[in-house]
Amino acid sequence: MATRTLDTGGDFGLLSAAELQARLRKLGEERYHHQHPFHLMMHEGQLSRGQLQAWALNRYYYQSRIPIKDAIILSRCEDAAFRRVWRKRIVDHDGDTIQPGGIERWIRLAEATGLEREQVTGCVGVLPATRYAVNAYLELVRDRSFLEAVASSLTELFSRDLIALRMDRLRQHYPWLSGALDYFTARLDQAPEDARFALQFVTEHATSRDAQELAIAALRSKCDILWAQLDALYFAYVRPGWPPPGAFCIEVPSGD
Amino acid sequence: MATRTLDTGGDFGLLSAAELQARLRKLGEERYHHQHPFHLMMHEGQLSRGQLQAWALNRYYYQSRIPIKDAIILSRCEDAAFRRVWRKRIVDHDGDTIQPGGIERWIRLAEATGLEREQVTGCVGVLPATRYAVNAYLELVRDRSFLEAVASSLTELFSRDLIALRMDRLRQHYPWLSGALDYFTARLDQAPEDARFALQFVTEHATSRDAQELAIAALRSKCDILWAQLDALYFAYVRPGWPPPGAFCIEVPSGD
Repeated sequence: MATRTLDTGGDFGLLSAAELQARLRKLGEERYHHQHPFHLMMHEGQLSRGQLQAWALNRYYYQSRIPIKDAIILSRCEDAAFRRVWRKRIVDHDGDTIQPGGIERWIRLAEATGLEREQVTGCVGVLPATRYAVNAYLELVRDRSFLEAVASSLTELFSRDLIALRMDRLRQHYPWLSGALDYFTARLDQAPEDARFALQFVTEHATSRDAQELAIAALRSKCDILWAQLDALYFAYVRPGWPPPGAFCIEVPSGD
Repeated sequence: MATRTLDTGGDFGLLSAAELQARLRKLGEERYHHQHPFHLMMHEGQLSRGQLQAWALNRYYYQSRIPIKDAIILSRCEDAAFRRVWRKRIVDHDGDTIQPGGIERWIRLAEATGLEREQVTGCVGVLPATRYAVNAYLELVRDRSFLEAVASSLTELFSRDLIALRMDRLRQHYPWLSGALDYFTARLDQAPEDARFALQFVTEHATSRDAQELAIAALRSKCDILWAQLDALYFAYVRPGWPPPGAFCIEVPSGD
């Protein structure tokens, strides 16, 4: 504990469930990536097709690691009842014999931006900084306490609003993407359901103030991880617009 | 590679699929725990109820770790198609809303031996040596190559025959257990299906003789892990019959 600074305002009493949830929601308002300039540009229709390609490609790396992240959490859990609930997340992303999962839906979105499927699934040109941030998420759920691993998923508390806004704005500004938004449609229901379970777990299992603060810090770390991915996109593809060697390059329209 | 002795008979050429499978099956004949004296006693009806309790209790620890083992394998896999197949194992053991899983079925078998559910699920009195062996299995699938992790599951190639024999002999010698054999009934179909997939994966992905030998060695390690669990049971509860401090003790029938 000595190595972590706890922003507790000098009060180490146990937070009530309502207080804990208020802290988590406040953190989301301040740090969730709905505020990131890259997203603001997207929602204002200011991103080019190439910038959307860079976003879809890099975000694919994140999507592709989500079932791995959830399998790590499963592998750390000795409670079959918890595992029965949590494994749904893996099904949601990997799909089943009836319907495609989130990964496949994301690939279709990326294809709709004009990328080739193989480029996406091969992660060709994904920014190293994207990989570092996503890998940090895997490290978080592997190396921190189980409570913190679960708490780090609580960004899903905030994703529904962002997704609803994004779907609206993508349809408005990038109508050529409108037919490829199934990923987001599915997440509108999946994410809140997952978040409810995780929030209940965190509320019940963070039984000391220290544990509550660690859970809050885990959500902060997750917000940082999401934010860092957009920082990397912005730096490489917006301003100054310097993709590092080997990274995806936006194709410049020729001849006009 | 230098630290492992490869029993290759001096021939380092790639084995054909048939040769590889023959090596794996020969290993099973020699080292799978169907030959263990504890199992031979069980199948001859020579185990007391107390000894069966010790077996059911200790084996519960193994059962309870199987979905964790499979989640570790999931977490190491970047191929959604593989994950879609492999996650079935977690469902088989953890159950779903329709039917109980293997863990619950094993608890019912243990209850049928006369143990309390809470003693079983709390792993009260499980032999330390059981834990060491089972934990070595988790370490194997976590730390060795992905191919070896998958190959270590190939003991399922041999389990159907053992389970069929065991069900027959349990009904014959311990008819009071006959109503609690659902775990084995389910495994009669599940294990061969799982083994087919794993065998195909290992056959296709062990593309060098070194890799083939590592896969064979992984199966050998898994056989050792199963065998060691029965050694521990035999030492503690058969001969000399010395359960270590804190371990489950067989209740001596009183008064007659």
